[in-house]
Amino acid sequence: MRNSLVAATAVLALTLPASAKDEPKGAPSPNEIVAEAAAEEWVAIPAEDMLVMTLAPDADGNPREVVIQLMPAPFSQGWVENIRTLARAHWYDGISVNRVQDNYVVQWGDPGYDNPESGETETKPLPEGLNVMGEDDYTTRVPVKLISPDIAANFNPIVRDGWRAPILRDAYASSATFEHGWPFALRQYPDKSDRWPVHCYGMVGVGRNYSPDTGSGAELYTVIGHAPRHLDRNIALVGRIISGMEHLSSLPRGSGVLGFYTEEEADKRTPILSVRVASDLPEGERPQFEYLSTEGETFAKYAEARANRRDPFFIVPAGGADICNIPVPIRAVASE
Amino acid sequence: MRNSLVAATAVLALTLPASAKDEPKGAPSPNEIVAEAAAEEWVAIPAEDMLVMTLAPDADGNPREVVIQLMPAPFSQGWVENIRTLARAHWYDGISVNRVQDNYVVQWGDPGYDNPESGETETKPLPEGLNVMGEDDYTTRVPVKLISPDIAANFNPIVRDGWRAPILRDAYASSATFEHGWPFALRQYPDKSDRWPVHCYGMVGVGRNYSPDTGSGAELYTVIGHAPRHLDRNIALVGRIISGMEHLSSLPRGSGVLGFYTEEEADKRTPILSVRVASDLPEGERPQFEYLSTEGETFAKYAEARANRRDPFFIVPAGGADICNIPVPIRAVASE
Repeated sequence: MRNSLVAATAVLALTLPASAKDEPKGAPSPNEIVAEAAAEEWVAIPAEDMLVMTLAPDADGNPREVVIQLMPAPFSQGWVENIRTLARAHWYDGISVNRVQDNYVVQWGDPGYDNPESGETETKPLPEGLNVMGEDDYTTRVPVKLISPDIAANFNPIVRDGWRAPILRDAYASSATFEHGWPFALRQYPDKSDRWPVHCYGMVGVGRNYSPDTGSGAELYTVIGHAPRHLDRNIALVGRIISGMEHLSSLPRGSGVLGFYTEEEADKRTPILSVRVASDLPEGERPQFEYLSTEGETFAKYAEARANRRDPFFIVPAGGADICNIPVPIRAVASE
Repeated sequence: MRNSLVAATAVLALTLPASAKDEPKGAPSPNEIVAEAAAEEWVAIPAEDMLVMTLAPDADGNPREVVIQLMPAPFSQGWVENIRTLARAHWYDGISVNRVQDNYVVQWGDPGYDNPESGETETKPLPEGLNVMGEDDYTTRVPVKLISPDIAANFNPIVRDGWRAPILRDAYASSATFEHGWPFALRQYPDKSDRWPVHCYGMVGVGRNYSPDTGSGAELYTVIGHAPRHLDRNIALVGRIISGMEHLSSLPRGSGVLGFYTEEEADKRTPILSVRVASDLPEGERPQFEYLSTEGETFAKYAEARANRRDPFFIVPAGGADICNIPVPIRAVASE
């Protein structure tokens, strides 16, 4: 087994020393802290919770694969079930990336869906049996399910007010924190049941039309800029990109309204060849990823170090961090 | 004169109605509020404060021009002066974009500068007479210079505690606000003299090596992801991209350490043909841009609407907004 950190845990120095001997000594960086995590702090992502989205190869013929982690219960499960249904009906096969708006979102789906720029007049029929969700489903009031005892027994969690993940100051809610590897906001701290997932970089949401429409899951987007947190509680978040984000974030921006590709630039729409639930793939072809438990000692240290950088490049620790500037470490687990 | 809003003021609905008649009525959007601003609320950006950076044409032969607004006094002026000096010495001509790290920064400069991936061993000599700054220069304690009376006389500012721009809750400082069109953080509100500019999307900073080096301004970067606010007070911010951001943010990501392009992918380094101070260009070739006064009534309404979206797409107003999710409206002013 070989482990490697994916890009989700950004390395942060802005320049590099000319040689290792030039590097001053200092406290460990957030990534160095993560590298020391015990094996049992890493949690395997179930294959049923991952989608493999294969884009058409790039202009040089290089393959482009994107892996999406779907959000676990209790969040957004109606849409998440729809997304599995759509993938299993092969509904996504043959759609395209139709919108790339700088510092905002990349959106993929049916080019004919509510897109006045596309020149398309037909929309692709959806499969039957999809859930229809209400706006109440954007948030949850389900009580928090605490960390499983078998994980908790293996290390010494840092407990704050009975909560194991760091509680952060937030510009949009009473506070923000993490749960089972996901970032979310709390309506009124210290009540931790009334909460919602937040629009950080790389999060995946469900495009919709005007209220009361809440979207089906056929039209999806991911955040490619500063967290558009005003969308929280207004659109369903259903997952995040855990590999291949650069294949979406570096696409050419659309010149139409809202960054849609216009009819004249239809050749810029990246074709999506297929989207599969990872558990439906042959065992040897399934991606394997793990996230660092957000309820563990290592994550608490990592978050603290993100808020107070003391590694050699830094002079002044910030004294705080935005929830979206503490990306949950995710790593690929490659079989040999 | 024809005015047009540039992409800095993002349009925010995630889908569009199939036709205008489907659009529900609602409060004006932030952009609609900005469109109603009085002419005197727009402030011309001096040509001396703009750089025109011309990249090599893209693969299809399309020109790529980026306009950078340099930060005005009292912030970072030692580096800003250096940048004008470097541009006037044509030092930037022939350098390249050497690093593109997803959700972090695009960095340009000398490919030989502290980049172990480049295969370069020579560095380009800097011109003489550059300022050398200290770490104290990352922040300022210069008293706030209030809005000029000729602007203030023309409209009715919303004054909060004697301050004309909105004061925001912040995850990194006591609070955050705006001054003369720029976002910054306050060390200890209500003291408004001790403050620093913040790393929002599109801001431009000065690459440096380990402390006590503070960088010269030869090596520059811009933010292409979620605001890396931990860099505030650790690196000098000197400006922001006000046009052509998409030419940088959509570049292919580098596969080397920190997103540097490796020696093997040196052909991905985008050449920079020239960087000119706009005031040095012939009058007809100078870009013309204006920003919306952040001390005015319209900006206060705009910021409030960003924090509490009530336009038709939205269901739940957020009740707050991050400083970097309230981009200062900037528009090109094109001569007919």
